[in-house]
Amino acid sequence: MLRTHTCGELRPAHINQTVTLAGWVQTIRNIGKVLWLDLRDRYGITQIVAEEGKTSDAIFAQMRSLGREFVVQVTGKVVERYSKNPELPTGDIEIAVEQFEILNASKTPPFKIQDDTDGGDDLRMEYRYLDLRRNIVRKNLELRHAVNRATRQYLDGLGFIDVETPVLIKSTPEGARDFVVPSRMNKGEFYALPQSPQTFKQILMVAGFDRYYQIVKCFRDEDLRADRQPEFTQIDCEMSFITQEDILNTFEGLVKFLFKEVKDVEIPTLPRMTYADAMRLYGSDKPDTRFDMQFVELKGQDRDLTSGKNFVVFDSAELVVGICAKGCSEYTRKQMDELTDWLKRPQIGAKGLIYVRYGQDGSLKSSVDKFYNEEDLKKWAEAMGAEKGDLMLIISGEAGKARKQLNELRLEMGTRLGLRDKNKFSCLWVVDFPMLEYSEDDNRWYAMHHPFTAPKPEDAHYLDTQEFGKIRANAYDMVINGVEVGGGSIRIFQRGLQEKALSVLGFSPEEAKSQFGFLMDAFEFGTPPHGGIAFGFDRLCSLFGGADSIRDFIAFPKNNAGRDMMIKSPSTIAQAQLDELGLKVNLK
Amino acid sequence: MLRTHTCGELRPAHINQTVTLAGWVQTIRNIGKVLWLDLRDRYGITQIVAEEGKTSDAIFAQMRSLGREFVVQVTGKVVERYSKNPELPTGDIEIAVEQFEILNASKTPPFKIQDDTDGGDDLRMEYRYLDLRRNIVRKNLELRHAVNRATRQYLDGLGFIDVETPVLIKSTPEGARDFVVPSRMNKGEFYALPQSPQTFKQILMVAGFDRYYQIVKCFRDEDLRADRQPEFTQIDCEMSFITQEDILNTFEGLVKFLFKEVKDVEIPTLPRMTYADAMRLYGSDKPDTRFDMQFVELKGQDRDLTSGKNFVVFDSAELVVGICAKGCSEYTRKQMDELTDWLKRPQIGAKGLIYVRYGQDGSLKSSVDKFYNEEDLKKWAEAMGAEKGDLMLIISGEAGKARKQLNELRLEMGTRLGLRDKNKFSCLWVVDFPMLEYSEDDNRWYAMHHPFTAPKPEDAHYLDTQEFGKIRANAYDMVINGVEVGGGSIRIFQRGLQEKALSVLGFSPEEAKSQFGFLMDAFEFGTPPHGGIAFGFDRLCSLFGGADSIRDFIAFPKNNAGRDMMIKSPSTIAQAQLDELGLKVNLK
Repeated sequence: MLRTHTCGELRPAHINQTVTLAGWVQTIRNIGKVLWLDLRDRYGITQIVAEEGKTSDAIFAQMRSLGREFVVQVTGKVVERYSKNPELPTGDIEIAVEQFEILNASKTPPFKIQDDTDGGDDLRMEYRYLDLRRNIVRKNLELRHAVNRATRQYLDGLGFIDVETPVLIKSTPEGARDFVVPSRMNKGEFYALPQSPQTFKQILMVAGFDRYYQIVKCFRDEDLRADRQPEFTQIDCEMSFITQEDILNTFEGLVKFLFKEVKDVEIPTLPRMTYADAMRLYGSDKPDTRFDMQFVELKGQDRDLTSGKNFVVFDSAELVVGICAKGCSEYTRKQMDELTDWLKRPQIGAKGLIYVRYGQDGSLKSSVDKFYNEEDLKKWAEAMGAEKGDLMLIISGEAGKARKQLNELRLEMGTRLGLRDKNKFSCLWVVDFPMLEYSEDDNRWYAMHHPFTAPKPEDAHYLDTQEFGKIRANAYDMVINGVEVGGGSIRIFQRGLQEKALSVLGFSPEEAKSQFGFLMDAFEFGTPPHGGIAFGFDRLCSLFGGADSIRDFIAFPKNNAGRDMMIKSPSTIAQAQLDELGLKVNLK
Repeated sequence: MLRTHTCGELRPAHINQTVTLAGWVQTIRNIGKVLWLDLRDRYGITQIVAEEGKTSDAIFAQMRSLGREFVVQVTGKVVERYSKNPELPTGDIEIAVEQFEILNASKTPPFKIQDDTDGGDDLRMEYRYLDLRRNIVRKNLELRHAVNRATRQYLDGLGFIDVETPVLIKSTPEGARDFVVPSRMNKGEFYALPQSPQTFKQILMVAGFDRYYQIVKCFRDEDLRADRQPEFTQIDCEMSFITQEDILNTFEGLVKFLFKEVKDVEIPTLPRMTYADAMRLYGSDKPDTRFDMQFVELKGQDRDLTSGKNFVVFDSAELVVGICAKGCSEYTRKQMDELTDWLKRPQIGAKGLIYVRYGQDGSLKSSVDKFYNEEDLKKWAEAMGAEKGDLMLIISGEAGKARKQLNELRLEMGTRLGLRDKNKFSCLWVVDFPMLEYSEDDNRWYAMHHPFTAPKPEDAHYLDTQEFGKIRANAYDMVINGVEVGGGSIRIFQRGLQEKALSVLGFSPEEAKSQFGFLMDAFEFGTPPHGGIAFGFDRLCSLFGGADSIRDFIAFPKNNAGRDMMIKSPSTIAQAQLDELGLKVNLK
């Protein structure tokens, strides 16, 4: 080794030992007769000191010539510091340099290697190797490794087997777009990169593997939204001879274990909420339950507190639904206008916002005073559990849209009220998802999870009566702080039912056979009841790290155009490569 | 859970408990009044018994209807067996069935689900889910998981960080052929799948990660020889601030740990052999050192025991080299002819084989008695350490070819003499590989490891004098039982030297910049000395499993045409997919 110790390990107990360290020059302070160098490596920072008279002139001169990020090797005696630095684990000591070598020089980095860097996103991406030197980014990847280790520890302990499934598989038209890989040995044919190992893990259950997991790269060729990556990592799991209850308990256990191991946080038993309740109470299948502020329907299935007062907007609405923002009655007119404008942006698309202020003095004032008197408003306040000092925010319209808009508003209010603390964690299961959802745009049914999700036995008869919208599935999502971190289902394990499900999704028998024939064939050779779950590993890590973006929890992420800015990829390839693959680029 | 216990866990201590098991029907024996069912799952086999009078008629009838591989659930009392089976861990007990349910039926499998299956390779590949049910195949994958776990345990313990590197990277023309992935968002451009994470792990060292590892899929679009797969797995590692010595010690430690943990085998300190010695003594850079039988040169650099006797074949040969096969002097003429024919096959291409029998009676008889008398042969025997009863096998010709041929013969003799026991392990390091090798075919120099391998400092000056063949690299392979299981090197970490190395390999400055510019740029920002190694994970597992082929240590391997026979991949894709990618299939 070119060092005897790392830059993070020396303590007063080492005083008088002669040690060798190697690392990067973080800073240099030179006051003429004395020079201090902060030497950095992955493990910490250690101060090196050179002093005129004590240090040789040659070394002193060499050290004066250093720049930031030079790589150097230093040998010297560990001495007690005159002025200690309690913020640094090595802050009690320094190294009095005796031998010194520059291992490699460095140009001046294009941005500062420190937590509050001055580098913009593009620059940090291009010089990712410098960005990764920053503590804050390195710690994210160390956290990722810790989550990976703890996941394996938990699953290994329960007898799960890590089995690698193939990366070169077969393209299927269902779901998101595949990345494809042309085959040279079978010209004109293509592999696809897996969007998930779904069918393979089911095949492993058919094969009797009983408990499988894998921390595995998956791929989706989607137009990238802010926080999506074309390649991402899943914790992928499957179990046999289980019910939904077993899966929920096993993976609730995983998440509790991860929080305890990685964050030292105790997570209480996860509440379970049906999809129907989640939509009704939060307008979302991934409610952020760090804060309450549940939806209250003023006009809906169970009550109507708004009709008959000549307010056409509510009278013509399918749903009038509100939330109560605690302590916000003093919001100014300007604030309300701004909030209304925010809701009207095309991303959200609300037509407007009705509000009622419940003053500290007990007064009730609304933006619809023309139609509703104080007694009406009192009823609303009662329904919504509003108290003096609160602000009621109400949206109306077609039920689905109104809920979606109010969900956005609820989250925004939660943020504004500081109710979404990144260091607080609220986990729950959302269960009983619909098996199928209808797309008006495409005029067809889609699988809400995927085509292999089993209907609840008590709802399966709706497949025959073609009431597809009524079928609930044994499908579940784990939601933490409003983020869907994992999802799964009990699977179909009978050929007949799988054929029926595929046919509802518009597969002809021929298409079903060509895409999933191997799986349905397998179902005929003794397939056990099985189910599973997959967690978004990047997302889980960013959640543990208290970050919004997954990008800094991935060592080498791609930008929103799918480009790796460091290696400059994708790129054109040689004509000879195309010829070998039997391909022609055909840009119109 | 649909079971209270697995099929591998019940013991006499459980007698009288009522349990529920679930699994597959392995066998059924029905002697009229009594029926025994062997129920199988991943964990073992448990005998179920039904008895007329004791078991309900309905269940008895149901059990009579079962076929092999049906999936069933059985509830009953654990009872002591009348006739115990000491070969089965559960052989002391059986389950007296009380409740019985068929969870899923099975068609008759196309081959037998047992160790000695009657299924051919093609059938086993197509029905991989049935093949994976066989104990022998499942155990291979369990072994793989064990090696994976132990590898992580060792490396985690030494502070290595598992960092995921990208799968969608950039195509480079050096080395084997890349698989490419067309980009839809950047039409006409392509990603490539990594042949190894080489440049990324070096970038991680530039980034200060210090110790990196990953168990990672890699890809090579090569024409598949018997035991190659287009996708394979590597244990990929890199360290900073190290010398070659540190790498060898660290990863010798890994392999010793794996052998101890997984096989309970103690491996002694690994001998180190230079590449030059390996070629001289074994004619191979991956010698099988489970047995001795080293090469002895009868005519070579240091001696000449053959010239001047008018034997033109030897006189005109650059090298005359032999091995001594212990106790083989009684090989018949027929056996010798057969061995000679084996050597003359085009795969080996020897011109012939000279042999000398050292009889038990002390006589020396050769196939070249016309030219060499007993005194000559005596000298050969002395040189080769031959004793009474031995057989000397001698090959001559151009040195490189003769060594290669004799290597094949040595391995064949080792096999015939039973010296290559799969349960014996002989590990060594081969070091000091040449940096570059010349290809007469292509009339250019190639990197023996890869373009990032550093020359030994004492040999670097040959780069300037253009004596490229003389440059030894700090490159090393780990060889176990004649198999290269891992290889690596100390890397170049200076821009200037890397540019020089690429230029020797025929890269123009523009090509070097476009392919590896990011790495050379990175070298200028404070790159530490670093080096690493990669192990072939599939190969390592098959070695631990005592198997020749890696295929049964991969859950879903592809055949020699690169096809997945189960999912029928690769396959054609829709025209719409091609259009979106801006591609045309162009079959001539």
